[in-house]
Amino acid sequence: MTTITKAACIGGGVIGGAWAARFVLAGIDVAMYDPHPEAQRIVGEVLANAERAYAMLTMAPLPPRGTLRFAPSVEDAVQDVDWIQESVPERLDLKRGVLNEIDAHAKPDALIGSSTSGLLPSDLQRDMAHPDRLFVAHPYNPVYLLPLVELVGGNQTSKETIERAKAAYAEIGMEGVVINKEIEAFVGDRLLEALWREALWLVHDDICDTETLDNVIRYSFGMRWAQMGLFETYRIAGGEAGMRHFLGQFGPCLQWPWTKLTDVVDLDEALVEKIGAQSDAQSGMHGIRELERIRDENLVGIMQVLKGANGGKGWGAGKLLADFEARLWAGAGKADVDPTAPAPLRLVETKVNPSWADYNGHMTEFRYLQVFGDTSDALLRLIGVDDAYVKAGHSYYTVETHIRHLGEAKVGEALYATCQVLSTDDKRLHVFHAIHRADGDEVLATAEQMLLHVDAAAGRAAPADPAVLARLQAIADAHSALARPEAAGRHVGQKR
Amino acid sequence: MTTITKAACIGGGVIGGAWAARFVLAGIDVAMYDPHPEAQRIVGEVLANAERAYAMLTMAPLPPRGTLRFAPSVEDAVQDVDWIQESVPERLDLKRGVLNEIDAHAKPDALIGSSTSGLLPSDLQRDMAHPDRLFVAHPYNPVYLLPLVELVGGNQTSKETIERAKAAYAEIGMEGVVINKEIEAFVGDRLLEALWREALWLVHDDICDTETLDNVIRYSFGMRWAQMGLFETYRIAGGEAGMRHFLGQFGPCLQWPWTKLTDVVDLDEALVEKIGAQSDAQSGMHGIRELERIRDENLVGIMQVLKGANGGKGWGAGKLLADFEARLWAGAGKADVDPTAPAPLRLVETKVNPSWADYNGHMTEFRYLQVFGDTSDALLRLIGVDDAYVKAGHSYYTVETHIRHLGEAKVGEALYATCQVLSTDDKRLHVFHAIHRADGDEVLATAEQMLLHVDAAAGRAAPADPAVLARLQAIADAHSALARPEAAGRHVGQKR
Repeated sequence: MTTITKAACIGGGVIGGAWAARFVLAGIDVAMYDPHPEAQRIVGEVLANAERAYAMLTMAPLPPRGTLRFAPSVEDAVQDVDWIQESVPERLDLKRGVLNEIDAHAKPDALIGSSTSGLLPSDLQRDMAHPDRLFVAHPYNPVYLLPLVELVGGNQTSKETIERAKAAYAEIGMEGVVINKEIEAFVGDRLLEALWREALWLVHDDICDTETLDNVIRYSFGMRWAQMGLFETYRIAGGEAGMRHFLGQFGPCLQWPWTKLTDVVDLDEALVEKIGAQSDAQSGMHGIRELERIRDENLVGIMQVLKGANGGKGWGAGKLLADFEARLWAGAGKADVDPTAPAPLRLVETKVNPSWADYNGHMTEFRYLQVFGDTSDALLRLIGVDDAYVKAGHSYYTVETHIRHLGEAKVGEALYATCQVLSTDDKRLHVFHAIHRADGDEVLATAEQMLLHVDAAAGRAAPADPAVLARLQAIADAHSALARPEAAGRHVGQKR
Repeated sequence: MTTITKAACIGGGVIGGAWAARFVLAGIDVAMYDPHPEAQRIVGEVLANAERAYAMLTMAPLPPRGTLRFAPSVEDAVQDVDWIQESVPERLDLKRGVLNEIDAHAKPDALIGSSTSGLLPSDLQRDMAHPDRLFVAHPYNPVYLLPLVELVGGNQTSKETIERAKAAYAEIGMEGVVINKEIEAFVGDRLLEALWREALWLVHDDICDTETLDNVIRYSFGMRWAQMGLFETYRIAGGEAGMRHFLGQFGPCLQWPWTKLTDVVDLDEALVEKIGAQSDAQSGMHGIRELERIRDENLVGIMQVLKGANGGKGWGAGKLLADFEARLWAGAGKADVDPTAPAPLRLVETKVNPSWADYNGHMTEFRYLQVFGDTSDALLRLIGVDDAYVKAGHSYYTVETHIRHLGEAKVGEALYATCQVLSTDDKRLHVFHAIHRADGDEVLATAEQMLLHVDAAAGRAAPADPAVLARLQAIADAHSALARPEAAGRHVGQKR
């Protein structure tokens, strides 16, 4: 759970709506104010995208959703919340007016983050009564997935505010990257601006079209930058000779006439039409909603890959995802199941991730075992075999599995998995899992598994901790009332 | 197999060595010329990195490795090859001299690609006798993984040369992106230059340090650009209103004083030292070799994710990987196994991909089933159940699997999988797979599987094609001489 439980979003476009989605999915109640007649529809669409993306992003237990209400005024939205995210259009006078209104009605110590992508926080906070709690919190689209938020304080922002903000954004899975000094456009947009200007020249001058330029980026440095940045990449390019040597080599190139340094392209009607037509040729076969879905699936997949990177420790945005998941697991406490009920335990809720699909759009064979493995892990957490227990040197290892495939799951389908404990002793744990379609409860696959408790250092079976065994026995006792599944104890190819 | 079977690499640094690795791993024999006393060591290190990366990148069968020899002269290296890649240092006079020498000794129609990152092909080819076959082929580091090569012709380059080059690079898994007009630094490096210059200003002015800047990139637009480029990303930002509307909004921002447009940072000793020290603080805990490994694993994972994107059709660099694999499978012909030998078929060679690791650095449970699934797929291809057969509406589905875990595989370990056919009829296929450690043959896991031949449209079991059955029967007959594995027919928890 997050420390802050109530937030307000002022402005509900693509950015404001995505902030609301991030808050709500993190369990925070949100009051949204946006006078736009379509605000409710737009926010609803962004929230649906975000929910779809989160279902693919993480198996960690999201907290119960926060509520989302549309408030009739800024005053009504902000008065009882601890965190306010302002995302109104990029005009200084407009933002100042809205921020002053927020300031007048919010609690004096409520955090106020502005989503501005370029205005200076010192300018934004100039007329506020409590300017110390105003900061820039500049996110990147899609806000519900990309973890970056640039945190920039103005000359009246308190150091404590930036620290509180950094902690708050971490709770919703974001990294508040603190920028030392305020400058217009901060860091990310400065870099984007520089490259964008050059890109416009290249298309303007017919050196290449938009698709060629995009391919140049995504087949090369785009992939480098998804996981290391600019300097770390060049550090490698420097090799053993090092970064200083690399800079020495690179330096002179800066004097080459390699960019249209001193001129700004005129984005006139002809250039707009040229780029528009090239973009249609490049991407027009996909609708915007379709491109959003593809983008979100790709970003999810990249973050999941980076979560497993660096020998499982996580890297870049994947490390942030791992940290976020650890937070979610810690906040989830015990699974919301009654271990003493005489019924199989419903331990895993999931959806078929697009990356799990075979060429038919069905869930691939080995992903069933992934879900069964998650089910065993959930059972183990329930009986106290948690990170600390494993780090102390003991765990349960799977020694045998018998899977039966009875039906097929499609991409995006919601599934759940249940577990029946068949028998247990001080070392062995014999379970029977089933994966069900959430809509209708049909059983799609079953897995009978034997797990063995091991002393990892010694590399041999060893009795489990008495407290673990007691929790396990309570479940086994409850399940002793259940009928043994007909499929248990069967071998491959056995006649019915 | 590639159309071109012999190539020369002139210049064997990080770029030239990686070209050699790409060629050799694609089955092309390479003659390398580089007078540097350490060339052999450097090329060997790059080749080792490339081999490690390819083992993780694809399960498709790489062709038999090409040979690599170090030639005593340019003349000796180029005289009997059809493809020459020049990667000597970036000095016009030096490159001209080397290219003229290549030109003098190579076959008149041999392709000559220069790896230059900035020089104009018209300048490079000026004094050549056969300038029509000279083009720029500018790659990105690591060349053995990143699929981009910018193809740029000079004023004497023939159109046919560019077409032949594009086809040749495709055969080694690269996309030759053709640039319309030659300009210094082409497209990719122009974009990089623009952003790099801005980055140097930001660090110079203490707006942020190198780590902050890298985090800004990799937590946000780096991930966007790994899968879509600049224009496609902004097309989404424009939403339903479209690209032209987006440009209309964005346009005015270009006039903002947002980049250090008119000035070039002086990369003096103080700035070099500042960046060097910040880079040490950011990345100094990792050695360069370690950073290379992490980078390669990340790039492999990202490309694999993108291969499965867009509903399995592939996206961006992942689509290129899928195309490359299709080429490898097509070129591999039938698996190199004797289906009539009275021995289990050795069908899969693989290595434990870092993304398959659990927190202990061991191969995760469900990845064993992935390898077993690959083993069944390899058997099916062997008996003629290929893409065409599946597209025609029939296939074998796994209905039951019994896995035993007997040992553990670590990240990077080489494994192979064998298959014994236990029994078969016109619909059923009963197999027994084993995963072995390549070093020592120890069996780490076994899987007994029952597969059923189905008519996918009708959704029910149906007899397989007679030609498929005949191939299958020949294997089953050969395997009838084998002892039945002791573990076959066992159920979970059965006493030995």
